Amino acid sequence: MKVDLLIQDVRVYNSYFKTFIEGNVAVLDGRFLYIGKQGTETFEPGEVLAGDGRYLIPGLVDIHLHIESTMVTPETFSFALIQNGVTTIVPEPHEMANVFGIEGIKEMIRVSRDCVVDMKYAIPSSVPATSMETTGGSVEIADIDELLRSEEIICLGEIMNYVDVISDPDCKTNQILRHIRKEYPHLVIEGHVPKLLDLDLHQILFAGVDSDHTHQTPEGMEARIAAGMFLEIQEKSMTEEVMEYLIKQDVSEHFCFVTDDVMTDSLYKRGHLNHIVKKAMAMGMEPERAIYASTYTPAKRMNMHDRGAIAPGKIADFLLVSDLREFVIDQVYKNGKKAYDAKEAYVQAEQPRQFPAHFYESIQLAPLTEADFTVQADAPDNRYPCRVMLVQNGSTFTEDHRGIVEVKDGELCWQESPYGLIAVFERYGKNGNRGYGLISGDTIKRGAVATSYSHDNHNLLVVGHNPHDMMVAANEVIRNQGGFYVVENGEVIASLHLPVGGILTEEPLEKTAKEVEQLRRAMESLGYQHYNPIMSISTHSLPVSPALKITDIGLIDVNAGKVVPLLLM
Amino acid sequence: MKVDLLIQDVRVYNSYFKTFIEGNVAVLDGRFLYIGKQGTETFEPGEVLAGDGRYLIPGLVDIHLHIESTMVTPETFSFALIQNGVTTIVPEPHEMANVFGIEGIKEMIRVSRDCVVDMKYAIPSSVPATSMETTGGSVEIADIDELLRSEEIICLGEIMNYVDVISDPDCKTNQILRHIRKEYPHLVIEGHVPKLLDLDLHQILFAGVDSDHTHQTPEGMEARIAAGMFLEIQEKSMTEEVMEYLIKQDVSEHFCFVTDDVMTDSLYKRGHLNHIVKKAMAMGMEPERAIYASTYTPAKRMNMHDRGAIAPGKIADFLLVSDLREFVIDQVYKNGKKAYDAKEAYVQAEQPRQFPAHFYESIQLAPLTEADFTVQADAPDNRYPCRVMLVQNGSTFTEDHRGIVEVKDGELCWQESPYGLIAVFERYGKNGNRGYGLISGDTIKRGAVATSYSHDNHNLLVVGHNPHDMMVAANEVIRNQGGFYVVENGEVIASLHLPVGGILTEEPLEKTAKEVEQLRRAMESLGYQHYNPIMSISTHSLPVSPALKITDIGLIDVNAGKVVPLLLM
Repeated sequence: MKVDLLIQDVRVYNSYFKTFIEGNVAVLDGRFLYIGKQGTETFEPGEVLAGDGRYLIPGLVDIHLHIESTMVTPETFSFALIQNGVTTIVPEPHEMANVFGIEGIKEMIRVSRDCVVDMKYAIPSSVPATSMETTGGSVEIADIDELLRSEEIICLGEIMNYVDVISDPDCKTNQILRHIRKEYPHLVIEGHVPKLLDLDLHQILFAGVDSDHTHQTPEGMEARIAAGMFLEIQEKSMTEEVMEYLIKQDVSEHFCFVTDDVMTDSLYKRGHLNHIVKKAMAMGMEPERAIYASTYTPAKRMNMHDRGAIAPGKIADFLLVSDLREFVIDQVYKNGKKAYDAKEAYVQAEQPRQFPAHFYESIQLAPLTEADFTVQADAPDNRYPCRVMLVQNGSTFTEDHRGIVEVKDGELCWQESPYGLIAVFERYGKNGNRGYGLISGDTIKRGAVATSYSHDNHNLLVVGHNPHDMMVAANEVIRNQGGFYVVENGEVIASLHLPVGGILTEEPLEKTAKEVEQLRRAMESLGYQHYNPIMSISTHSLPVSPALKITDIGLIDVNAGKVVPLLLM
Repeated sequence: MKVDLLIQDVRVYNSYFKTFIEGNVAVLDGRFLYIGKQGTETFEPGEVLAGDGRYLIPGLVDIHLHIESTMVTPETFSFALIQNGVTTIVPEPHEMANVFGIEGIKEMIRVSRDCVVDMKYAIPSSVPATSMETTGGSVEIADIDELLRSEEIICLGEIMNYVDVISDPDCKTNQILRHIRKEYPHLVIEGHVPKLLDLDLHQILFAGVDSDHTHQTPEGMEARIAAGMFLEIQEKSMTEEVMEYLIKQDVSEHFCFVTDDVMTDSLYKRGHLNHIVKKAMAMGMEPERAIYASTYTPAKRMNMHDRGAIAPGKIADFLLVSDLREFVIDQVYKNGKKAYDAKEAYVQAEQPRQFPAHFYESIQLAPLTEADFTVQADAPDNRYPCRVMLVQNGSTFTEDHRGIVEVKDGELCWQESPYGLIAVFERYGKNGNRGYGLISGDTIKRGAVATSYSHDNHNLLVVGHNPHDMMVAANEVIRNQGGFYVVENGEVIASLHLPVGGILTEEPLEKTAKEVEQLRRAMESLGYQHYNPIMSISTHSLPVSPALKITDIGLIDVNAGKVVPLLLM
């Protein structure tokens, strides 16, 4: 019998018995045909691959992530994933949807089609996430219908407004959920439901949301699984107690590993889902179970019954691994074809511009002046208590602090205060909104940082200690149509150009990873103290993340869910 | 919070942990809303149901069965299922498709829509099963497309021609499978693959068929599960060794229980899938695992993620069970509404005719005469060896024996031989074909039996020992447009009228069950020795079941797959 490929003498991972079984594997037309003892006496292979007793593992499957978190395009992302053994992902283009609406989603899907990695998309369900920000686009029910009619969509992406879902039957998210349940009852609906328990949790499930990828506890996991929820465990959830629960309880069917957000340099240096598999093993999980949670259960969760296992008929996506616990990947095959070999050069080709022309001209702002960093204060000259956003190392949550700042001649004298200024400029040419606030804590102590990469609305965010540096940084973002710019004494000391929608670069991973590292170091050199200053600053404008955040509409008390004034008179 | 129903103080089956958890259950809009400790302090229920510590179990789900095997309509079948706790089924109308083609399938689906039980249909994939028989209809690729566009279809029904699938790339079944894999890659494809192992088994999976409901062995189950196949265990597979394997191995995710074919009187007396659950427990399976295999795994196999568990958001189909191991069902709820209560009268309403008029006029044959049971033999007067179909008690397989019979004046003198005559008359008005054969073994020893219920083609099948009784029996079938008629000395001694397509009755279950019993006893009174004479005789015309069978085209050597002569000259 003619086959395309015969892999001889491998320890084949069997997803159904969660064990390795020695044998040979035949591949035909990009799919596994046979796994067993028969070899060349039965098959006439076009290619023979010597397994030499190594481990044959299904391609890794990551069902919850945002490519935009890595600030690269799908092509670069795919290139990076393959060498890390990830062959299928379910990206949710939440950021591109905030910038460009449905067109952003469709373009991400379009450019993904040529990638080696299979990308099955989640529709961002919460764009915008709140009504307290101006975004470039939104995702409405009609958009969801259009995407489900025409594009390769695998699920509805994470429902973020879980409080609204429980408390407000008529909120936009409940309208979307009712529509999906009625019109597409088989569509998987992903969730983001931190800390919910008992009736609250059950109401979310009743609404159709049946997964959670937020931080977990043993009690929360037990309650979620018992109620029929699927758990997506990301690295920040991999605490000792969570891992102990997953290892000791009979819950293999009910969870998988996901990456959610991976920074560019982390992807370049540590890898991707393979890093989590390795970490799970290091934390005591049997390799067979760590692999199960990175291949079989995620595929099953998304009803991708054609993958996640090395079995007859399944797509021939696989890794040859020489050291199991160190998860050393020698080779990666996609659809039965070699896509990566550790012994061969692996270089990303130059990428032409892939997106429509207007995707590179998304910052609709005229150059700013120093006066744009003057904060008008409609109050008599005096010293006033003000809200101060306190940045905390180790968290993207901020605190809502109070400071005393002087008002003089109708202006807030922030430069004479102990605080920095944070400003957001609406950048879609929609309304010219500006929001101003004060900032302190573990952020920069001098100079300025400006970026168009600011969740979720991606308006122009500027943090700084003097108007000149802030102006220079902001104008670099505007002139370059997107990116991160760090300025000290009027000079750019680090930058990352993000020309696609102001949030992505088409440069290769290695170059971008190095720039991200330099960017982080530059921010640290200005006094930023955070394990991830880039994520920290880019979530200052995220009005669903506690406690005090800022958008183009103003300061947001996230817990109260409303816009609040800077000056407390 | 307002809810429709609050069930208090029950031991709730939890499908995710395979255990019972004590608590209350709230139902809203036909779905479970909440399972836990909260009760009337939280909920304002429209109705309260006192659980009194009884067991709350999801409605049973049977994903492989043929309603026609019970010879009743979907409405009667649904009525019977509900009192046995079965709330969802996946019927495959293979027989109605053989009689009426796609119209038979569509009519079964149509009349099912008003049933209490949810019926999600499988498309019969092998109609006709062979080219060696004349059927009323066939199912072609265009029919499959039409059904998938317009009807509630959940899977492609059992692929029967597994030998062709492996050996003939261009056979009709492979054409269908290629079409399904290409156009409907997510459609579940059911299989019938007895005894296959290793490469043969893997080739079937490669073709897209990934379940098996035929008789199992531990070795076969191990091979099937390892290759990614799902097992559907029917009662005849529940041997000691099979059950021991299912109980001791960690394979709960990989099998479910199904009924396949249940005779009318068996349904009436013993029940349905509930009988199998009870039997599994009696054979040593823990109740929690027997329930799992009758609720959760079958629903999951068919991607019915909205049922198979008592969890928030799932359809509120459930049973209240007072004695777990005896599986005593006190009440059955469908969509949160009471559908059966053991303490209340449960009587089926009179059924009007539900099918189109021509469904009641499907036997296109003029009355026969005694001469129609004369077998012409184009041979000189002599004694000849002949093929004899040997009926065996305990099996639907026959043996291909040899007997010596005289030919005189161009006629086979079968009446003077030790053998009976078996004749098949094509009854669709298509070609007037007739097939004749000799029969012996554990069949009737005198009188005659005629039926239009003869798998799979459902032509008129007559077995008997004298032309007069055979003519009387055959003409009863023709005059009544379908059924079973047992005749002795020219008198009908038992009958079952099957006017819908010659294979179903619209009479209530109890009446039909009694007639089936009388029919069986009447056949036994004529000498039939078989645990199920009705199934035995109705499979004499099934040309995919070894070894010697008969159709309107003639005698069939099933193992050779060809038509063979009666006389061996």
